[in-house]
Amino acid sequence: MTGRLVAFFGGDTGRWQVQHMSVITGATLAVAKRLDVLAGDANVVAGQSWCLRGITSNERYVTREEKNRLAEKQQDLGRPQSVCAALIALRKSATWWALTQDERRRIFEDQSRHIGIGMRYLPAIARRLHHCRDLGADEPFDFLTWFEFADADTAAFDLLLHELRSSPEWRYIDREIDIRLRLA
Amino acid sequence: MTGRLVAFFGGDTGRWQVQHMSVITGATLAVAKRLDVLAGDANVVAGQSWCLRGITSNERYVTREEKNRLAEKQQDLGRPQSVCAALIALRKSATWWALTQDERRRIFEDQSRHIGIGMRYLPAIARRLHHCRDLGADEPFDFLTWFEFADADTAAFDLLLHELRSSPEWRYIDREIDIRLRLA
Repeated sequence: MTGRLVAFFGGDTGRWQVQHMSVITGATLAVAKRLDVLAGDANVVAGQSWCLRGITSNERYVTREEKNRLAEKQQDLGRPQSVCAALIALRKSATWWALTQDERRRIFEDQSRHIGIGMRYLPAIARRLHHCRDLGADEPFDFLTWFEFADADTAAFDLLLHELRSSPEWRYIDREIDIRLRLA
Repeated sequence: MTGRLVAFFGGDTGRWQVQHMSVITGATLAVAKRLDVLAGDANVVAGQSWCLRGITSNERYVTREEKNRLAEKQQDLGRPQSVCAALIALRKSATWWALTQDERRRIFEDQSRHIGIGMRYLPAIARRLHHCRDLGADEPFDFLTWFEFADADTAAFDLLLHELRSSPEWRYIDREIDIRLRLA
């Protein structure tokens, strides 16, 4: 996949089979049977019921030392054993976005250990973060995170989400949808 | 103006008269006689030759203490005496975007005093920053900054730009267009 824009299509078609969709917080999203991940900008076609768009971007919180440690441990998407995936769509509250950089970093890492928690699940869980908030004025989510892992790491992935959702950062999440997928 | 998306139209029509357009770094932009600033998404119509789009967003570097000091001193756009304006369109290099947050902050403020320099020109120079980089994969600029000031503050504005352009941060600017405007 080249280019920074990525579109996630939910509906009756697509490479990934939806195992489960959960509304964790806020408004729901139409149920989809399958999901496709495509590079570039795109419109919903027959067989697709919704499209969520995101863009990969520069990192917002990580320090050089953290980035180097992540780079040592993380693996790419598309590993042959990664037959499981998850799309976690998040929106943060207006309160979060009104915080300054130092305040957000303090909640994100000093209090919530977002980077530190994620690091403990590497290399098993591969991930790619897509930003949506600055794609336009009316995006339904702020972030779309795509995760890939092997069957045997599903319990670890659940634990990762449980740890993050228990953190102070998650008090600022006002919409969250959790979509679990399998190559089938 | 409500909403976060803002479009700047250059061409033969518009509320602002272009006094001068300078290419500081990188590729040029078609010469325009007038410029309009409109809220929301929009397409170029007759009389307009180009459109640059940006979105206001959360602050990326400022700390709480800096934000409070800025809030005390800064004034809004649209002051009656603000008959002069400038649109500075900037793109930063891939090297910049590959830096981590702590590295970017160090260059932005510790070395370049971007916030500190801007603060010294408040309240004379009013400004609004628009982000473009995450609007899509092919935006021509990363930032559009709109400045407004009185006739008598034009020399101060030139000095502000001179200070910023002399800073280490500007080594990472690979495209810059400077458009000076007047209500006429």
